[in-house]
Amino acid sequence: MNIDHVAIVVNDVDKAASHYKNILYVHEVKFETIATEGVKLAILKLNNARIELMEPINDDSPIKKFLEKNGEGLHHIALETNNINNTIQNMNNCAIKFLGNVRTGSENTKIIFIHPKSFHGVLLELCEYAK
Amino acid sequence: MNIDHVAIVVNDVDKAASHYKNILYVHEVKFETIATEGVKLAILKLNNARIELMEPINDDSPIKKFLEKNGEGLHHIALETNNINNTIQNMNNCAIKFLGNVRTGSENTKIIFIHPKSFHGVLLELCEYAK
Repeated sequence: MNIDHVAIVVNDVDKAASHYKNILYVHEVKFETIATEGVKLAILKLNNARIELMEPINDDSPIKKFLEKNGEGLHHIALETNNINNTIQNMNNCAIKFLGNVRTGSENTKIIFIHPKSFHGVLLELCEYAK
Repeated sequence: MNIDHVAIVVNDVDKAASHYKNILYVHEVKFETIATEGVKLAILKLNNARIELMEPINDDSPIKKFLEKNGEGLHHIALETNNINNTIQNMNNCAIKFLGNVRTGSENTKIIFIHPKSFHGVLLELCEYAK
């Protein structure tokens, strides 16, 4: 597996992306809004992986609740798999608990989240890119 | 820059490493104790980056305080640079605040930490591998 991205909650994705881009030698920045997740993203491409900055776009967004409780900071890490359904099946055999079902994430990936209780307090995302 | 690793604080690094290794198709696990930082590490090698699990080894460890306050979870991300001194100089020109000086981290890397206030609540580490 690869680390695909690290996701960070911020108050203002435009400002934060500009700051990260200037300092971290980012190749490319792409913005994307995922209405179903209630977030606007800035995807920062580094050499081997991505940093995703996330800003809530409405009051129902789980990211909004995270911001109110914790302030800006690390939110989750995403691991890339070649076959998300196989990975889910293998993890189910190990009693890993998922949050909801497979849905569409950034850059048209198939994604699913794993409960932090299954990975020592870490919210993990699995993602699969379209072939 | 590359994402070198994501660091996670856990109560028991042996147990957590065994769990992560079984589930996440980890190639190799290496254990290391860094007495000066007060931590025992399990370094899990994925295809493109590493996950570092960290357990405090004494009561003075900053990781111990993190655990007591937050429980297990994400702690920091580390970015690899080819020349840590150049990167520090460039970041100093952008008013980035560092925590302490360059010291030795896992796998004999040169490391330095950046204040979370300089990166929207995220504790960032810079690391440089020996050539």
